[in-house]
Amino acid sequence: MSLTRIHNFSVSLDGFGTGEPQSAEAPFGHAGQRLHQWMMATRSWDPTGTAGVDDAFAERHDPGIGAEIMGANKFGPPGWQDDPGWDGWWGPNPPFHTPTFVLTHRPRPSIEMEGGTTFHFLEASPAEALETARAAAGGQDVRIGGGVTVVRDFLLAGLVDHMHLVVVPIVLGRGVRLWDGLEAVEEGFDVEAVSAPSGVTHLTFTRKTP
Amino acid sequence: MSLTRIHNFSVSLDGFGTGEPQSAEAPFGHAGQRLHQWMMATRSWDPTGTAGVDDAFAERHDPGIGAEIMGANKFGPPGWQDDPGWDGWWGPNPPFHTPTFVLTHRPRPSIEMEGGTTFHFLEASPAEALETARAAAGGQDVRIGGGVTVVRDFLLAGLVDHMHLVVVPIVLGRGVRLWDGLEAVEEGFDVEAVSAPSGVTHLTFTRKTP
Repeated sequence: MSLTRIHNFSVSLDGFGTGEPQSAEAPFGHAGQRLHQWMMATRSWDPTGTAGVDDAFAERHDPGIGAEIMGANKFGPPGWQDDPGWDGWWGPNPPFHTPTFVLTHRPRPSIEMEGGTTFHFLEASPAEALETARAAAGGQDVRIGGGVTVVRDFLLAGLVDHMHLVVVPIVLGRGVRLWDGLEAVEEGFDVEAVSAPSGVTHLTFTRKTP
Repeated sequence: MSLTRIHNFSVSLDGFGTGEPQSAEAPFGHAGQRLHQWMMATRSWDPTGTAGVDDAFAERHDPGIGAEIMGANKFGPPGWQDDPGWDGWWGPNPPFHTPTFVLTHRPRPSIEMEGGTTFHFLEASPAEALETARAAAGGQDVRIGGGVTVVRDFLLAGLVDHMHLVVVPIVLGRGVRLWDGLEAVEEGFDVEAVSAPSGVTHLTFTRKTP
């Protein structure tokens, strides 16, 4: 059974998954790195990092994943569609190592990177994109990689089986809200919470079996 | 030193401190009792209740408090000001047992209840109300009792020394947001988080010493 999974998705106390304005210099706007410091401090990202509960969650990002779906706002800064040479933020060897489907209203030819990542560009609904990604995932799971609106769209469509959400104790005040339109979304999930010494709280949403 | 404290203040994952619409039948609107179930399940509220971390926080509500400040929206349902006999939700012996200052644009004479609670009605800024409440607190602390807008106003005014906030893993979608206008409010506090087996996460905001 191939699951649809979200990992390491961080939001502020007021529910913002990114700050504003987003740009090439500040991919998360005024949030800077504050939403992801907990993750960058783990051994999964830094060999000298922490090895506790933050790392236990962070390292679940890759295993069992056969494809990723991401939004246009994750792939590049506003306007990347106008740059025919843009191939993502991540250099020649992106950290996905699978087929990676970028949702955009302006598809372009696929780009094969080093390390197993191939970017494909799709104009598709969440359900259509998931069907395409699942076919490419070789029986493994599909990760919804963000940004905020893509996570929200997949939750709204009822397509998420597992979501690891991280509440960071900061108040961003502005940016892109995750929860808009998602009233009572928790009713479809078993939810577990565990706080970490770093100050963040990990929430695990597991889809209820019918 | 008399501190200004907030206790057991519960918000949803999307930052709402109450649902809507608020009425005599549904003081928290469509939220019902969901924001406070964790508290009502503790020994502080129910002798047969739980005695763990939820209770450890819940029972800090009263000790050391000499006065409370609450907003008009906590004292009664919309329109209570038109009912000259309204004396609160809590029956003859309210759970405050101290002078209790109700912020309202339509003050009325004070009401002395059983058990040490006297309701006083004030039209005042947060700083003025705090000065009045502190004078009545006999050297003890002042509790900011809510509702949401009063907590927000006191945070905005920089008047809060200690805040116990409880994040309940539900998405309310609508109601009254706590965090509006409070960007970066956490910078003035040391923040600690601990999740409870009940599923809620307790956040303790302690004002940084200058």
